[in-house]
Amino acid sequence: MHAKEMAEDFPVIGVESDAWEAVTQLAEHRLPGLVVMGDDGRPEAVLPASQVVRILVPSYVQDDPSLAGVLSESMADRVADKLRGKKVRQLLPADAPELAVVNDDDTIVEVAAVMARLRCPLAAVMDGDTLVGVITASRLLELALGPK
Amino acid sequence: MHAKEMAEDFPVIGVESDAWEAVTQLAEHRLPGLVVMGDDGRPEAVLPASQVVRILVPSYVQDDPSLAGVLSESMADRVADKLRGKKVRQLLPADAPELAVVNDDDTIVEVAAVMARLRCPLAAVMDGDTLVGVITASRLLELALGPK
Repeated sequence: MHAKEMAEDFPVIGVESDAWEAVTQLAEHRLPGLVVMGDDGRPEAVLPASQVVRILVPSYVQDDPSLAGVLSESMADRVADKLRGKKVRQLLPADAPELAVVNDDDTIVEVAAVMARLRCPLAAVMDGDTLVGVITASRLLELALGPK
Repeated sequence: MHAKEMAEDFPVIGVESDAWEAVTQLAEHRLPGLVVMGDDGRPEAVLPASQVVRILVPSYVQDDPSLAGVLSESMADRVADKLRGKKVRQLLPADAPELAVVNDDDTIVEVAAVMARLRCPLAAVMDGDTLVGVITASRLLELALGPK
């Protein structure tokens, strides 16, 4: 079996898209992350939900976590304020995890090797310059264990 | 809203459980990770699927990735062989990501601050020594954005 047959659809978003749209997608579909496509149409990074939650934390709490408990919460407004006019690019952490990229004719072992090395829970499957789909780590385990 | 109200059920597994059982759970339920409970009944770590895929890669391929493409694949057998007699503990990477642990009366901001700091997509919610449930990063975003 090759990566092409393992790949599944997965939500992607452009690096120049509206940040609010990205956060809404993560929230509504309860996604652990989004694949971010670069201006060149190639997948560029993963935007992990675990990093995006940082926008929920006011900067004075990041400086002094003991202040977090005393906040009044009007989250949705604060998040909307913070994201207004921002692009997905600005949400990407400086040390965003490198996206695993594999070829459509790679084998399970090849995909697993790339994922494990990068500790990336997703691999983007490319046919040349075209994104064919995405393989998650758990999908790979499912395929490896085979039909029951 | 407090962490207690945000928490959801999430699969957990004991650190002394059978490794095969953990991998099967990840694969069958397509989970990005499992919460691993320590011998003391407290959550100890996250077992990320992105690390477990390492078992699919023979050690000679880890040494020389160029060999991955030439393998014949009889995955399920190889995985079963590799896991036989192993405990979940032995699957945990030496540098397993630290599990975010929060109190049941923590606020959204407190949970977000811990998750962002540890880059952990999950937070275990504790009522004293008892695991109440788990909050994922995307669940937190959903709650923060509020009802539509």
